[in-house]
Amino acid sequence: MPGLEPITGPTPEPNAAPEPTPEPTPNPEPTLDLTRGAARLTAALVDIESVSGDEKALADAIEAALRPYPHLEVLRDGDSVLARTSLGRAERVILAGHLDTVPIAVDSTGRRNVPSLLEGDWETGTLRGCGTSDMKAGVAVQLVLAAGLAEPNRDVTYVFYECEEVEAERNSLGRLIRTRPDWFAADFAVLLEPSNNIVEGGCQGTMRVRLTFRGARAHSARSWLGDNAIHKAGAALRRLAEYQPRRVEVEGLEFREGLNAVGITGGVAGNVIPDECSVLVNFRFAPDRDEADAERHVREVFAGLDAELVVTDSAPAARPGLHLPLAAEFVGAVMAGLDARPTAKFGWTDVARFAGLGVPGVNYGPGDGGLAHKPDESVDLGQVVRCAERMRSWLGPAS
Amino acid sequence: MPGLEPITGPTPEPNAAPEPTPEPTPNPEPTLDLTRGAARLTAALVDIESVSGDEKALADAIEAALRPYPHLEVLRDGDSVLARTSLGRAERVILAGHLDTVPIAVDSTGRRNVPSLLEGDWETGTLRGCGTSDMKAGVAVQLVLAAGLAEPNRDVTYVFYECEEVEAERNSLGRLIRTRPDWFAADFAVLLEPSNNIVEGGCQGTMRVRLTFRGARAHSARSWLGDNAIHKAGAALRRLAEYQPRRVEVEGLEFREGLNAVGITGGVAGNVIPDECSVLVNFRFAPDRDEADAERHVREVFAGLDAELVVTDSAPAARPGLHLPLAAEFVGAVMAGLDARPTAKFGWTDVARFAGLGVPGVNYGPGDGGLAHKPDESVDLGQVVRCAERMRSWLGPAS
Repeated sequence: MPGLEPITGPTPEPNAAPEPTPEPTPNPEPTLDLTRGAARLTAALVDIESVSGDEKALADAIEAALRPYPHLEVLRDGDSVLARTSLGRAERVILAGHLDTVPIAVDSTGRRNVPSLLEGDWETGTLRGCGTSDMKAGVAVQLVLAAGLAEPNRDVTYVFYECEEVEAERNSLGRLIRTRPDWFAADFAVLLEPSNNIVEGGCQGTMRVRLTFRGARAHSARSWLGDNAIHKAGAALRRLAEYQPRRVEVEGLEFREGLNAVGITGGVAGNVIPDECSVLVNFRFAPDRDEADAERHVREVFAGLDAELVVTDSAPAARPGLHLPLAAEFVGAVMAGLDARPTAKFGWTDVARFAGLGVPGVNYGPGDGGLAHKPDESVDLGQVVRCAERMRSWLGPAS
Repeated sequence: MPGLEPITGPTPEPNAAPEPTPEPTPNPEPTLDLTRGAARLTAALVDIESVSGDEKALADAIEAALRPYPHLEVLRDGDSVLARTSLGRAERVILAGHLDTVPIAVDSTGRRNVPSLLEGDWETGTLRGCGTSDMKAGVAVQLVLAAGLAEPNRDVTYVFYECEEVEAERNSLGRLIRTRPDWFAADFAVLLEPSNNIVEGGCQGTMRVRLTFRGARAHSARSWLGDNAIHKAGAALRRLAEYQPRRVEVEGLEFREGLNAVGITGGVAGNVIPDECSVLVNFRFAPDRDEADAERHVREVFAGLDAELVVTDSAPAARPGLHLPLAAEFVGAVMAGLDARPTAKFGWTDVARFAGLGVPGVNYGPGDGGLAHKPDESVDLGQVVRCAERMRSWLGPAS
């Protein structure tokens, strides 16, 4: 195990009292051992809490664990950490994962879902805890590969980024792509979000629109003097209930769209005819549509309604690109011998950011996306071990 | 003007420091002159702020103004004040009004709508300010009659009560009826809420029901795994939009019902298929229905929908009762020579509380209900003067 750089203790608060006070007991310095396998490393990563916006301790530990490896160039940017080999290989791939988790859950007995809890053994057991599947298992695979592959057959850029679980503006991958473009020049990208070790191609786009219906207030005892905006919104809900979403094949994968109300609000007081009702609608669209097509479609669905329609946010889809040679080779390596085929990624992921750079990418990682964000989140450690092995077989020099 | 009892200064707080402290400067004691007419008295009442829950200063002033009159028995209960004659007349009538107002409004330049502002003269002008129409003008008429009618032709009970503008449980009329039943034994009641000096018979009932639609959460990228509760609510909105409210004649007056969504809420997050949507519906019903009929009707309207229906609150209607001899005589007295006829009261008012006691009642008072609760609330002082004159002609001994 390479020696670790000491981690700096907590900086004193600027408003600390000037007179001498007893030194605060420093937090035990978390150290990460990158040589004992991805399963144990997953547990160590889970045990360093890193709720979105609070990733510093984990970024410190990862930076400290990577710095000693002479084959890696390490860059710290905010609480993101990047590392890369520069061996002059013909191709470069990006392995990316986010450090943050959703908030720690506390059950009715007061028990928190951190630190992690091992059931069974490190090879075949289950690890429970916040961030196990989403996505400290994937980050553990990245770290094991970064430490263990001094001479990968392709140059590799490892990206560990912040604030994926919160508003898109805070996601540091967007910032890093803008401010460190040279770190993102690559031929292929793997985002290690949980996919049960099945390659998921591309991702669907997402667009939210707000429909606002307006009317006129009146006292509800004289309702004929008003114009009920909530009643008007019923027409939009009916169109949504009757909507038939597309199932469409794009580059060999089947995508499934969806158009849904995700929020509705209206009403002034219990005795007032409401003058406004707004419906927030989320459209998930297949990668054969761009954002302009998606907006056009949503406007068609609601055409003729007495409503204002505003797009509140939107993110493009990513085409799967599995027909490209590098992607096909990757699928061959990581899914060889499995009784499963690549599938479409339905959720939006940061793969779309790579697609926006012209870097084709896939989602592939250990863990179950269906357990993400749940209080009883867990990960199958067998998946973690196998993911690391397969990625190594793809990138590693024949040993 | 009868001498006024001194008003007690503020009681020291129980947790006041025990050591001697300088006496707080007492607030200037508001005094009410009940002999200079209802118009000037309206202004004096408006100038004593009495937002719901904060009626003490006004109740103090009214109590102090009434106590000196030997023909009145005065009762203070909380911040409500009651007064009555006991001349052994064959009939007793109640004149009731609330002391509280909605909150003081402040316009964009920082100007408050208290104190009152006179435009024109005291006989024909307009008085602006919070509570002018709703309902310090009506309270002024009550006070002028209470002071001026030492020997009314019927015994009269004057009720000045608190917290009419807030939740029904805080309305002190309900408490007083329960705890002081002997003060409410009467043959007829007039509630002096603003009605533009037109007798409004009875009142419509009001019932609120909450419809809750349930579904199943899922990530909106895989919406087919969920069940969208907001979409289900569309069926209820459609029934509301298509609903044809009744117009029905009851005891000679036309009532107009209404069934309206007054609130809707649903949604978990922008990427989640919502598992719950609730619609709050307000039914305003004519006095030919009781509350059980009203609930039965609402349940019929929504029959067959996949929703839970809960009645959240309800208040009965009051039949107009204008065919009863005492009411007919009242209408004859106060509307003689007017080119107008009594109308139905659409809003729910405390008249229904008197109806619940078996005391028929009407709404009749100066001021415009359409201006109530508005920042630019005002009252036509001519109406105030005429209301006092007509009520006096009804109750007064021939002078």
